[in-house]
Amino acid sequence: MLQGNAIVAQSGGPTAVINSSVAGVVETWLANPDAPGNIYGGISGIKGILEGRIIDLAEQKRSVIEGLRYTPGAGIFSCRHKVTAAEQERLVETFRKLNIRYFFYNGGNDSMDTANKTWQAALAADWEMRVIGIPKTVDNDLAFTDHCPGFGSAAKYIATTVRETGIDLESVSTKNKVTILEAMGRNAGWLTAAAALSKRYEDEAPHLIYLPETPFVKEKFLADVERVYRKLGYCYVVVSEGITDENGEYCFATGGKDAFGHAQLSGVGVALKDLVESELSIKARCNTPGTAQRSAAHWASKTDADEAYLAGRTAVEYALAGKSGLMVTFERIADEPYQIRMGQTPLSKVANVEKKIPLTWINEEHNYVTEDFIRYARPLITGEVHMPMKGGLPEYVRIDLNRGRL
Amino acid sequence: MLQGNAIVAQSGGPTAVINSSVAGVVETWLANPDAPGNIYGGISGIKGILEGRIIDLAEQKRSVIEGLRYTPGAGIFSCRHKVTAAEQERLVETFRKLNIRYFFYNGGNDSMDTANKTWQAALAADWEMRVIGIPKTVDNDLAFTDHCPGFGSAAKYIATTVRETGIDLESVSTKNKVTILEAMGRNAGWLTAAAALSKRYEDEAPHLIYLPETPFVKEKFLADVERVYRKLGYCYVVVSEGITDENGEYCFATGGKDAFGHAQLSGVGVALKDLVESELSIKARCNTPGTAQRSAAHWASKTDADEAYLAGRTAVEYALAGKSGLMVTFERIADEPYQIRMGQTPLSKVANVEKKIPLTWINEEHNYVTEDFIRYARPLITGEVHMPMKGGLPEYVRIDLNRGRL
Repeated sequence: MLQGNAIVAQSGGPTAVINSSVAGVVETWLANPDAPGNIYGGISGIKGILEGRIIDLAEQKRSVIEGLRYTPGAGIFSCRHKVTAAEQERLVETFRKLNIRYFFYNGGNDSMDTANKTWQAALAADWEMRVIGIPKTVDNDLAFTDHCPGFGSAAKYIATTVRETGIDLESVSTKNKVTILEAMGRNAGWLTAAAALSKRYEDEAPHLIYLPETPFVKEKFLADVERVYRKLGYCYVVVSEGITDENGEYCFATGGKDAFGHAQLSGVGVALKDLVESELSIKARCNTPGTAQRSAAHWASKTDADEAYLAGRTAVEYALAGKSGLMVTFERIADEPYQIRMGQTPLSKVANVEKKIPLTWINEEHNYVTEDFIRYARPLITGEVHMPMKGGLPEYVRIDLNRGRL
Repeated sequence: MLQGNAIVAQSGGPTAVINSSVAGVVETWLANPDAPGNIYGGISGIKGILEGRIIDLAEQKRSVIEGLRYTPGAGIFSCRHKVTAAEQERLVETFRKLNIRYFFYNGGNDSMDTANKTWQAALAADWEMRVIGIPKTVDNDLAFTDHCPGFGSAAKYIATTVRETGIDLESVSTKNKVTILEAMGRNAGWLTAAAALSKRYEDEAPHLIYLPETPFVKEKFLADVERVYRKLGYCYVVVSEGITDENGEYCFATGGKDAFGHAQLSGVGVALKDLVESELSIKARCNTPGTAQRSAAHWASKTDADEAYLAGRTAVEYALAGKSGLMVTFERIADEPYQIRMGQTPLSKVANVEKKIPLTWINEEHNYVTEDFIRYARPLITGEVHMPMKGGLPEYVRIDLNRGRL
C-alpha cells in the first residue's frame, strides 16, 4: 500500500449532504487500522490547499465529524476556482512537502476536471498519488453515474415546497392565482423536474414545468398558463433558472459570469411573473427559494444522506485498493425496490460533461416530464434525516477550522 | 343554550396551522353531546357563504378532519373579500335560512373586522348569534393577543432557512458573499425579526435585519453591509417586504393594491441585491421563499399547531358558554418555562388594528432586534409536528368540498 497522508476538500456550491461524504471519508480512514497516514482537510477546497490552509481532521471532536452527517453547507469550506497550470505544479509541491499521497475531491463537473488535472500534474512530477472524485451536486448533471449525492435532498425539498405552496395557491380563491417557482439548474433541469414528484391529483401543482433541455417560447408559455388558469382557476409553474430561447441563449440573463465563465442567472421567475401579469392580466407570485434548495438539511432525504456517506467511504476504499484518477459512481440495479451498487468512471471522462434529462423523459409539449422521470427520481427522496434540535431549531455542528492546523 | 347550527370559515392568507384551528372547532363541536346543531363549513370564507357554498363537515371522513392538524393551506378554502353593507344583510339572511346561530371566523385583522360587522348586522336584524373570531396570521400583527397562531411555524421556518442558507453562505469563500432574504410582513416585522432566532455565534447569520417599524435609509443599509462584509468576508441580510422610507412610503412598491386597498409588495429583496452589486460591487444573492413561509407545514412548530387547535376549541367553548363578538386571545403567563392561558377581546377592538414590534425591541441602529424579542419569540417555535409520509413527501389531506353540500 502506498504510504502517506490523505487530504479531503470540498468544491463548488454546497448541498444538504456534501458533509456526509466528508464524514464518510474521515470515519472510514480513521477506522481503518491499515490507513497509511493522517487524514487532512483542505480549507476552501483547492484554493485553501494552495494557500497552505490545511487541518488534521483527526483533531476534531468525534461528535463534530458525526454531526457532519446532518449539517448543511461545506463543513471545511468550499471554493469555485479554476486552477492554472502553475498552480497545479504548486499543488503537487504542497502534496510532496506534506507527504500527501491520497486526494479526495468532493464536487461537481468543474471539480472533477480540477481533480483530473491535479492527478495528471502529479503523474508528470513523478509524485505517485491516489486521486478519487466524490460526486456532489444538486443539479444532478454529472455523467456516468445514475445520480449525484445532493440531488435527492434538493429534490425532496422542491417537491415538498411545491406541494405546500400548491395547496396554498388552490385554497385562496380570490387573488394571485398564478404561482411561479424558480428552481436551480444551470443547464440541466433535474431539480426543476423534481417538482413533478409532488403531484398526486390532476388538478394539483405543478401544472407546468419548463426545463433548460428544450427551448422556451414565451407565446407557448403564455398560452399554457392561460389554458390551465381557464380550466382550474389557478396555475402553478415551475421553471428552471437556466431556460434558453430557440437560439440557445439564456432567457432573462443578467450578464455576469462566474469564475468558470458560466453565465450568472437570476430573475427568470420574476420575469415570468411580470409577463403573466402584463400579458394575461392575472395576478401572479414568484417564489425563489434560492440557496435554501441546496442547504435545507432539515428536510434532507435519508437515502441521499446515506448515499453521500457511502460515496465518501467508497472513495477511501478505492484509494486504499490502489485505484486512482476515478470518480465514485452509483449504478442502479432496480427502481422498485430501489437498489444500487457502487461503480467508478475515469475523471477524464466525467470532467466538464453535463448530463441532461433525456428528451424522451420530457413531454411533446415541452411543459412537463414523463412517468420515466418520476420512476427514476422517486426513490431518491425517500426517508428523513433526524438531527438534534435545540430551541426549536436544528443544532448543526461547526468544524473548528483553527483546530489541528498544520 | 342558543339552539341552531354552527359554521366555520377561513379568511385571508393561509398559514401552516390554520387548518388545525378548524380541526379544533369541528372536533370540539362534534364531541360535545350538548352542541345544539350541525357544524358547517363555508367554502372560500365569507364569499362562499354568500354564494351558498356550504358543506356539512360531519360528513367528512374522521381521518380527514384529524389530518387538518398537519395540513397546510386553507382546507375549506379562503378568500380576501371586503363585505359590503348589502352583503352583510344577505349574509344574515343566509344564516337565518339555514338556522345558523354560531359563526367562527378564522383570520387576521380584516377578517375580524368582517366578523364584527357581520355580528352587528345580525344584531340589527334581530337574529341572535354567537360570533367568535379565531386569530390566524403569519404576520403576528393582531393586537390584544400575545401572539397569533401561524406565526410560530412561519418563524421556525424562517429561522431554520436563515441558519441553513447562512451556513451555506459562510462556507463558500469565493463568490456571492452577500445573501438577502426577503420575508413576509406588510407593516409589522415580526416574521422578519424571527430570523434572529437563528443566530448562535457572533459571526453567524443573520447580521442585519431591516423592519417596517423603522425607516429604511439606503445609505445606512449600504454602510451596514459594507462594514459586516469587511469584517467577516460575507454578510447575511434579512429584510421585510414592507420596509418604508423616511416619508412612510413603501420602498420599491410595485403599485398594485389588494381587495382591502393594501399596497402589493414584491421585489424588495431583489432591489437590495441590485443595490449591493451596483453600489458596493459585491456579488449578492436573493432568496424569496414567498408563500413557502406560510405553508411549510413539514416544519411547523408543535407549540404553534397545538395552540391553533386550542384556539379553535376555545372558540367553540366560548360560543357555547354564550359569549359573542369576541376574538380568542393568548395571554402569556411566563416565558420560561413557557406558559399561556386563553383570553378574549372584543372584535370591535381588534378589528383593523395592527400590532407592530415595540420600538424598544429594535436596536438603536435600526438594523437588528434586542434580546427582548428573542425571549418573546423563542418559545413559539419549539417542537415538531409529525405527519404521515408517502414516497418521501408529507401525505396531506384534502377536504372533499363536494361531500355534504347543503
